[in-house]
Amino acid sequence: MSPKQEQSFPEQLNQYRTAIEEALDNALALTPCRYQTVIEAMRYSLLGAGKRIRAVLVLEFARIFGVMPEHAMPVACAIEMIHAYSLIHDDLPCMDDDAFRRGKPSCHVQFGEAAALLAGDGLLTCAFETAGQAAQNLPSERVLAAMEKMAQCAGYRGMIGGQVIDLESEGKSISPQALEEMYRLKTGALLEASCSCGCLLAGKQEMVVTAENYAKDLGLAFQIVDDILDITGDQALLGKPVGSDAEKHKSTFVSLYGLDQARKTAEYYTKRAMETLQKLPLPDEFLMQLTDMLLNRLQ
Amino acid sequence: MSPKQEQSFPEQLNQYRTAIEEALDNALALTPCRYQTVIEAMRYSLLGAGKRIRAVLVLEFARIFGVMPEHAMPVACAIEMIHAYSLIHDDLPCMDDDAFRRGKPSCHVQFGEAAALLAGDGLLTCAFETAGQAAQNLPSERVLAAMEKMAQCAGYRGMIGGQVIDLESEGKSISPQALEEMYRLKTGALLEASCSCGCLLAGKQEMVVTAENYAKDLGLAFQIVDDILDITGDQALLGKPVGSDAEKHKSTFVSLYGLDQARKTAEYYTKRAMETLQKLPLPDEFLMQLTDMLLNRLQ
Repeated sequence: MSPKQEQSFPEQLNQYRTAIEEALDNALALTPCRYQTVIEAMRYSLLGAGKRIRAVLVLEFARIFGVMPEHAMPVACAIEMIHAYSLIHDDLPCMDDDAFRRGKPSCHVQFGEAAALLAGDGLLTCAFETAGQAAQNLPSERVLAAMEKMAQCAGYRGMIGGQVIDLESEGKSISPQALEEMYRLKTGALLEASCSCGCLLAGKQEMVVTAENYAKDLGLAFQIVDDILDITGDQALLGKPVGSDAEKHKSTFVSLYGLDQARKTAEYYTKRAMETLQKLPLPDEFLMQLTDMLLNRLQ
Repeated sequence: MSPKQEQSFPEQLNQYRTAIEEALDNALALTPCRYQTVIEAMRYSLLGAGKRIRAVLVLEFARIFGVMPEHAMPVACAIEMIHAYSLIHDDLPCMDDDAFRRGKPSCHVQFGEAAALLAGDGLLTCAFETAGQAAQNLPSERVLAAMEKMAQCAGYRGMIGGQVIDLESEGKSISPQALEEMYRLKTGALLEASCSCGCLLAGKQEMVVTAENYAKDLGLAFQIVDDILDITGDQALLGKPVGSDAEKHKSTFVSLYGLDQARKTAEYYTKRAMETLQKLPLPDEFLMQLTDMLLNRLQ
């Protein structure tokens, strides 16, 4: 499934996405059993939606450094599972209490709170089970290094830490530093995991810092674009109601800096992410276009 | 910290527990940061309580097969983290809605629902980060095999599956087969992980089946004893109110078979667990006494 020179960017992206979707479907098969509900709830939130940006980043970073995307796939699937679990738990009534996600009822609306809680737990656990399967084709040391990075970035010093800051600042004014830390952790950390896991699976420890710098800027740009779309976006395209941040009195880049400045900041981080990509041993046209596409959700 | 011949069983057990408690404390240090609340909530539920049976089983099975308990400690800590996370989520209002745990307010009563949810997520993620550290002293393949077993047993086909059966059978009459499957998954699976991770860390794949058979019987005996104590126990010793299963109209071994038959069944499984221990290459007096102690919580 490696992108080929003669393919256009949308063709390459589509090829990755199709392969990821199939691998996720296989990783979590529905089998008749007494606890079938939780598998249904896990599959409901994991499959058939989502941009798969994180998985694509794992596969492409691995490919750049010489690992076949097929061999990096278990880790790519694992990161999508972590992402899906975080959305399920984030939507729960005690958290953001969001009834819609990706254009359909949230997991807890569809399956009830308890099943949604367990589906999230199940996806998080399944992520580590799935990632380990990469050792069928790659050295165990590398797989273990990738899993450790994944756990760090998803954990309390990463994504979960970001959610805690988010929760605790609801309804309060928040400093620009705290907002940036929150975004870096909540969205950035898992993107960092994606890019650096690609490097680690290839045994390229020395490229992890570059990959993380890219991911940090990409994550900030991505989140600022989200803030902007929450004001200016189209509910049908977003898959969730517009204006939900303001309604929850959440600080965002838009509420702190205004729309114009937020747009400029997103462009600034995107440009810096592109510059970091130039530092890779070989220029990667696919990643340049992917980065550009994420900013241009704005238009 | 390996048990020495001249030490009594309580001394050996105490030595293990002290070492486990210290390792858990170190694995999750409290550092000042914007997301400190979640670390406090994680530490609140993880430290200073619990029998540490699961961790002790990891260390002792590893020791039997020649791995220093110190070297198996990261995996022992990981399984305690998974156990602690499962209790936090299990106590949440949308699940069992229990306000007390281990003699103090449940995590969500103390820190609020959202923080408790995230503390559970944080402990589960931290478990995999922590387990990976065993590779500092043991071959990566073995550590990876242990982590995979851990994820399988804790996941939707293991502990989480058991919780789903539990949830769905609340208020209903449940068949003895379904009750036994629920117990095997809900309690047994993590005990299986503990015993077999010890073997896997020692590279003794061929001992996993014996270890699992022991753990399965131990788990059933353990859970039946829990059912009995829920009727006959002392709230001060249990750390939670007596009679909570009956109040929730949960089927238990006692409600299905009566107290006498439940006692006999617990004894039967304990005896069978003891017999399985005889199949280990060397008889292990410590495990015999531990097994006996768990049954004798009854007296």
